[in-house]
Amino acid sequence: MAVSELVADLVVANRILFDQAVLDGFGHVSVRSADDPQRFLLARSMAAGLVGAEDIMEFDLEGAPVDARGRAVFLERFIHSEIYRARPEVQAVVHSHSPNLVPFGVTPAALRPLYHMTGFLGDGVPVFEIRKVAGEETNLLITDGRLGKALAETLGPRPAALMRGHGSVAVGGSLKQVVYRAIYMELNARLQSEAMRLGPVTYLTPGEAREGAAVNDRMLERPWELWKRQAMRNA
Amino acid sequence: MAVSELVADLVVANRILFDQAVLDGFGHVSVRSADDPQRFLLARSMAAGLVGAEDIMEFDLEGAPVDARGRAVFLERFIHSEIYRARPEVQAVVHSHSPNLVPFGVTPAALRPLYHMTGFLGDGVPVFEIRKVAGEETNLLITDGRLGKALAETLGPRPAALMRGHGSVAVGGSLKQVVYRAIYMELNARLQSEAMRLGPVTYLTPGEAREGAAVNDRMLERPWELWKRQAMRNA
Amino acid sequence: MAVSELVADLVVANRILFDQAVLDGFGHVSVRSADDPQRFLLARSMAAGLVGAEDIMEFDLEGAPVDARGRAVFLERFIHSEIYRARPEVQAVVHSHSPNLVPFGVTPAALRPLYHMTGFLGDGVPVFEIRKVAGEETNLLITDGRLGKALAETLGPRPAALMRGHGSVAVGGSLKQVVYRAIYMELNARLQSEAMRLGPVTYLTPGEAREGAAVNDRMLERPWELWKRQAMRNA
Amino acid sequence: MAVSELVADLVVANRILFDQAVLDGFGHVSVRSADDPQRFLLARSMAAGLVGAEDIMEFDLEGAPVDARGRAVFLERFIHSEIYRARPEVQAVVHSHSPNLVPFGVTPAALRPLYHMTGFLGDGVPVFEIRKVAGEETNLLITDGRLGKALAETLGPRPAALMRGHGSVAVGGSLKQVVYRAIYMELNARLQSEAMRLGPVTYLTPGEAREGAAVNDRMLERPWELWKRQAMRNA
Repeated sequence: MAVSELVADLVVANRILFDQAVLDGFGHVSVRSADDPQRFLLARSMAAGLVGAEDIMEFDLEGAPVDARGRAVFLERFIHSEIYRARPEVQAVVHSHSPNLVPFGVTPAALRPLYHMTGFLGDGVPVFEIRKVAGEETNLLITDGRLGKALAETLGPRPAALMRGHGSVAVGGSLKQVVYRAIYMELNARLQSEAMRLGPVTYLTPGEAREGAAVNDRMLERPWELWKRQAMRNA
Repeated sequence: MAVSELVADLVVANRILFDQAVLDGFGHVSVRSADDPQRFLLARSMAAGLVGAEDIMEFDLEGAPVDARGRAVFLERFIHSEIYRARPEVQAVVHSHSPNLVPFGVTPAALRPLYHMTGFLGDGVPVFEIRKVAGEETNLLITDGRLGKALAETLGPRPAALMRGHGSVAVGGSLKQVVYRAIYMELNARLQSEAMRLGPVTYLTPGEAREGAAVNDRMLERPWELWKRQAMRNA
Repeated sequence: MAVSELVADLVVANRILFDQAVLDGFGHVSVRSADDPQRFLLARSMAAGLVGAEDIMEFDLEGAPVDARGRAVFLERFIHSEIYRARPEVQAVVHSHSPNLVPFGVTPAALRPLYHMTGFLGDGVPVFEIRKVAGEETNLLITDGRLGKALAETLGPRPAALMRGHGSVAVGGSLKQVVYRAIYMELNARLQSEAMRLGPVTYLTPGEAREGAAVNDRMLERPWELWKRQAMRNA
Repeated sequence: MAVSELVADLVVANRILFDQAVLDGFGHVSVRSADDPQRFLLARSMAAGLVGAEDIMEFDLEGAPVDARGRAVFLERFIHSEIYRARPEVQAVVHSHSPNLVPFGVTPAALRPLYHMTGFLGDGVPVFEIRKVAGEETNLLITDGRLGKALAETLGPRPAALMRGHGSVAVGGSLKQVVYRAIYMELNARLQSEAMRLGPVTYLTPGEAREGAAVNDRMLERPWELWKRQAMRNA
């Protein structure tokens, strides 16, 4: 895929994640460069709902902009750089404060897949506690490589992690996959909260989670086309 | 009703169910053919919110497309084929993951009618557990005739069933009736969850359910016209 | 106020109550005639969101249309006729299935005012149980004068009543007041459910309810203008 | 900043707070005059969603309009005048009935920051009980300087207070800050209610709250631009 196509898809991903209420004025989505796996693309510091192709910047795996030209950069670009460094297979990363996930990050309740749409959560969703690596007086943000590395270690080989008192991160093998994951893990959180109040919940078995994820991974185009149409019409 | 009219109504049904948030990028609605009761109409594999008349395909009761012309088909078309086979009086089927119903499918809480709008739920809403027929390692989808038949058996003579870890199915004597049922059973789930938290709930008696369903079945045109207008304006 | 103005305001009331999600494809709003207190105006049987001036009909206090001209009428027009008969000061009536009120009608939880906006609920909100007057096999609808009279008796001198397994009714001294009441009692139900889960709730005292209602009754124009603008823009 | 710019920003603030559902037909936002710290700007009595530059009036710290020209004024302008008098550093004030905050005002549950976005709540959110200063028969409104002063005393040096049976107030060093605070404290209330149902909640430490607030205070432009674009497009 040419970089220009990747930029276009990254703009669409920004708009979709805003339109679907995963991102608001805060949070971001990135994609690994098609030209150089040591680089990734991310918007300048701005609201996702307003991002255009001209706002996309390139960064290296130190989180440094390749050609900043005076543009402000996200304080938390190290979430992206350190995950790309630790996970060579990851092609795209979303960091959000999507509202239904925040409560799972601040309580002992474990986020678990309750239907086939979220089978990708089957290996569990770890919670990153910044206090363990930086003490009790941080601003909770991932503002340097050391914190990004600690977050990547909590994430491990999984597709998603919660961040206590902050939000969450999702990763994927493509923009389409990470957008799907960010949207449906948010929805799973909402449905799980509701189900937990109705009674003991039957979650997916490990096999159901694995098979559910496999089948949905073959259908990422379908919701992407719908979300794209909606996001662009609402822009 | 001519097939062309049925196709037009099926497009409207797709758009309504998306606009009313019963369907998202996934789920589908079908109608039995007016020409041949051994056939039914269903969109090609795509998001309901984008379906047009040119996307409607015909299938037989084996779930095989009559004239595929290379178009991708839904993996779960067997939900439709096996229900049409088992229930000659059924004219339309909706399968969805509508969010308020999912929690009732994964907990022991029984979905029950709490107002006259959902009297059609009066005979209870069974839960299909795929593990009983296919074990604990499925992707939860109804991907062949055997699974479709098992689902149809759980449904029995009723208008709706939940599918554990997956979603739900509703059937009706017309597209207008099945759209009504899919929308209001989703709403009943939301209201019932809320009511259960307020205290012990007075549900409809069998007689109230039967009479409530009967009177609402005579008014299916009224909401259809409203939903159609909204769906087409928002398209 | 001339009848033509009243008709125009009744159309606006229909549109507002739909736009604010108090009415969906079902439910209705009426106003007593300016020319004859023994008559009232109500749309023909149709969804409130689609009502225009040409759809407004006149009824007498038996619930009979003055000049039907073949138009279908609401089965539940007797809610309106019997309340106008029993309450000479009432000028407008709303009947809805607004979703947050339904749970309070089917559980022992009492709807009570938790802020000044709903002081009008200070004398309590009775629940009409149709089983007491018509047994356990009704369709729950108010389909004749006898049932309408029983509902009006439960309502008594109050501004609102819940209807078990069905919905609610609100009355007012004007369309603007009844629209305000229908919208804010629905909101009070939502906030009260939430508050009851947080801990013991401090409700308004009788004096606070009375004074809160009095001050808000002087400001009915303000939200009406806003709601009207929104409803007409969204139409 | 010139007064004309301040008026333009105040109009935007009105529109944003309506578009973000913090204000409905009721509630208001003001800003201290750039020319005279003993004066502040506030719309005439009307719904925030409809406010234009021509609706902005000037008031002194007695709550008296400088040049009323017959325009109706808010009964509760004393919320603003007394806070500006008591808090010389405050430049902007929002009073709302935003729905998720009302339940926290009528129950013993304390509103507390559960993520970095609401670090500004770290010193606690006091609840103003009007009964303590004016008895049990008020209309709950802040209709004179004495009540405004009592509210300002409860607020003390903090950025926000709840008002029992009524709503809330937020203050800031600029319109952008107070709009941010009003929107995110409403969101915190929603997330906290949800989290409290999932299990014991880990709130921010005092240090996290302080540092979180500090970093977000440097990013107020970002959401403002987004909210402004949305509010103006939806107007």
